Amino acid sequence: MNLTITDVRLTPILVADPPLLNTQGVHQPYTPRLIVEVVTADGTTGVGETYGDTKYLELARPYAAKLIGRQAGDLNGLFTLADEVDVDGSRILGQVDVGGLRGVQTADKLRLSVVSAFEVACLDALGKALGLPVHALLGGKVRDAVEYSAYLFYKWAGHPDGVPAEKDDWGAAVDPAGVVEQARRFTERYGFTSFKLKGGVFPPQEEIAAVRALAEAFPGHPLRLDPNGAWSVETSLKVAEEIGGLLEYLEDPALGTPAMAEVAARTGVPLATNMCVTTFAEIKEAFARDAVQVVLSDHHYWGGLRNTQQLAAICRTFGVGVSMHSNTHLGISLAAMTHVASTVANLHHACDSHYPWQSEDVLTERLTFDDGKVAVSDAPGLGVELDRDRLAFLHRRWLDDDGALRDRDDAAAMRVADPGWVTPAVPRW
Amino acid sequence: MNLTITDVRLTPILVADPPLLNTQGVHQPYTPRLIVEVVTADGTTGVGETYGDTKYLELARPYAAKLIGRQAGDLNGLFTLADEVDVDGSRILGQVDVGGLRGVQTADKLRLSVVSAFEVACLDALGKALGLPVHALLGGKVRDAVEYSAYLFYKWAGHPDGVPAEKDDWGAAVDPAGVVEQARRFTERYGFTSFKLKGGVFPPQEEIAAVRALAEAFPGHPLRLDPNGAWSVETSLKVAEEIGGLLEYLEDPALGTPAMAEVAARTGVPLATNMCVTTFAEIKEAFARDAVQVVLSDHHYWGGLRNTQQLAAICRTFGVGVSMHSNTHLGISLAAMTHVASTVANLHHACDSHYPWQSEDVLTERLTFDDGKVAVSDAPGLGVELDRDRLAFLHRRWLDDDGALRDRDDAAAMRVADPGWVTPAVPRW
Repeated sequence: MNLTITDVRLTPILVADPPLLNTQGVHQPYTPRLIVEVVTADGTTGVGETYGDTKYLELARPYAAKLIGRQAGDLNGLFTLADEVDVDGSRILGQVDVGGLRGVQTADKLRLSVVSAFEVACLDALGKALGLPVHALLGGKVRDAVEYSAYLFYKWAGHPDGVPAEKDDWGAAVDPAGVVEQARRFTERYGFTSFKLKGGVFPPQEEIAAVRALAEAFPGHPLRLDPNGAWSVETSLKVAEEIGGLLEYLEDPALGTPAMAEVAARTGVPLATNMCVTTFAEIKEAFARDAVQVVLSDHHYWGGLRNTQQLAAICRTFGVGVSMHSNTHLGISLAAMTHVASTVANLHHACDSHYPWQSEDVLTERLTFDDGKVAVSDAPGLGVELDRDRLAFLHRRWLDDDGALRDRDDAAAMRVADPGWVTPAVPRW
Repeated sequence: MNLTITDVRLTPILVADPPLLNTQGVHQPYTPRLIVEVVTADGTTGVGETYGDTKYLELARPYAAKLIGRQAGDLNGLFTLADEVDVDGSRILGQVDVGGLRGVQTADKLRLSVVSAFEVACLDALGKALGLPVHALLGGKVRDAVEYSAYLFYKWAGHPDGVPAEKDDWGAAVDPAGVVEQARRFTERYGFTSFKLKGGVFPPQEEIAAVRALAEAFPGHPLRLDPNGAWSVETSLKVAEEIGGLLEYLEDPALGTPAMAEVAARTGVPLATNMCVTTFAEIKEAFARDAVQVVLSDHHYWGGLRNTQQLAAICRTFGVGVSMHSNTHLGISLAAMTHVASTVANLHHACDSHYPWQSEDVLTERLTFDDGKVAVSDAPGLGVELDRDRLAFLHRRWLDDDGALRDRDDAAAMRVADPGWVTPAVPRW
């Protein structure tokens, strides 16, 4: 068993994304992801994925070069190695943030978002070499399946530029009836029993009506609403007062720890976040101020699966809930999320996942949701296999792009439909 | 590779302990430890050790029985399994605590202290089976050797009851000159460059004099003083004022988080603890009140090596230092401490270890300190081997004991010399 890393392959791709609406704009027809492969001396290949925007890619390249010759099992060393890669703050961090939907942007967080893909790839390689599933490398699963929630979006029937020509089969959802219909299809197709609505798109009263319609259609099912920080403290409190009793939690109603703390102090509705607590550095203040009751981890932000376990331990210690956030991702990351979620005893909420929205993947076999759950694989590594033809196809799309889609920009996508659109100032309502 | 646990062996032993003084009394001639062996279906044996007092042993027995048939790699499951073992609160927790030197006593902590030995034994077995050192199972070492400090004690030349007949070769140390002489021998024998003095034995002025003598004899070397919570807030502040400038940190000057917080608020001398933060449940309040600047982890208390990593992550996140506490222990635990310490990047203080005081061990080969450091083993598992003859010999001593020494009781040992001795009320000074 020789786990010396002899090769690292980075493959940026563009994957189809439906016209999902959020407070910043709308998803572009294609979104960038980066597929990472780590190859060891004995021929084992591990895979990982992360954000594929230019700034991630530019950091991943020198990082990958430094990995050659190191041991795939040297997971703690991945972080010290990351510190050695220079982040050109002015150039990389000065870029337009992706709508701020990923929370604070710091050099450390950018590094961790890159490291996460390599950590997952190393775990996959290590697991394959040892004949152990990734969850076993994380101390072993404490559940056999991980529950996910239906991630509901306001959406259009198609992208405004008519690309791709073939529309997705979900149809439009721009009012309560459309949201409920979408939720029904989610339950029929995947068996989800809890629902999260991405809000911040329409004035709060419309979204309140949508939540009420969901509660009526699915009585007793856990519901969540996430306006991505689009509301003022007062608006947040008003929404909490109106529909708090229907919600499992309210996610990032207002932007930033001070505003969240104020909302939390004045309502009994639990607040969740993937925007004001997205790095270890943000935890201390947020917890001291009781600003959040549930932290939604994104293993990409946090630096991988073992850091996600650390975050869960911190949440447990401070009596804060933990669950999992999702941005557009493919099956590699869903497998990674499922492995780590299976090891976290204090995970008491269904995790988020965009995966049902992704019609394209890089795997030979898609992961499936049964009764809203993904079964935890006991196969060596992540238990997924790269489809090299699909990878090449999606990479070709990235190569052929003129650069317009290589950095996700929801506001730019919105301008195709509404040329005067600018990213709304916060609070929007 | 079949890592199903087919057998668990528990061997309580009594090991020789020098007459080391602390604020509660003096170490007994022999101290109980529990050696745990976990045997898997393919014949791999992993070893661990923990406290050996009756209450630990009584909990370890039913716990061991539950382990049969489980996987050695199911480390996360060790904790849920522990919850299933009944702790008879009134019986077990009602016992005299060992001088309070191990901090708060709760059912959870007692369980974790037992689990830790099984976790280490499972990691050892897993590592042996996979051909990986324990540190690799913890994400890999970030240093090749772990630094320890010289653990200086006031001590007598021999135990007052004349047992064992042969005295240790350290001699007495009951004044500044004796402490300095002991420190010199520590540096000569092991190369330690930092020094911790167990205080709380003599009035503070005598211990201040000892620290000053150490500072004079070893200028610039890190010094620590640990009275085990024997002082009042005012005394703590007075000591801090007098010798704070000589100290790397002051350890548990006063007892409990409120007192520590008050001391911390009124001095710039960093405070360390292994008494007011010994469980995850104690962290929140202590950190919120800035009561401690360095948490000294004891992997026995905290539930093993992976929990120690979690503690380190919490400390890093909250800007609190972390290092390692030690109670009387043997080479198995020193190996375990060294493996986990090698993986913690934010370990910036030399760890404590009683190991040099232990003339007896259960290993075929003792671990060694070179330049004050223990080299991190890259051999599979912990990298230690049980000496079964020694184990049987020390177990025989436990069997032959009439029960007087099966529970460590430093006050009882002190009463041999001073029949009127009672555990001093706190604060003692």
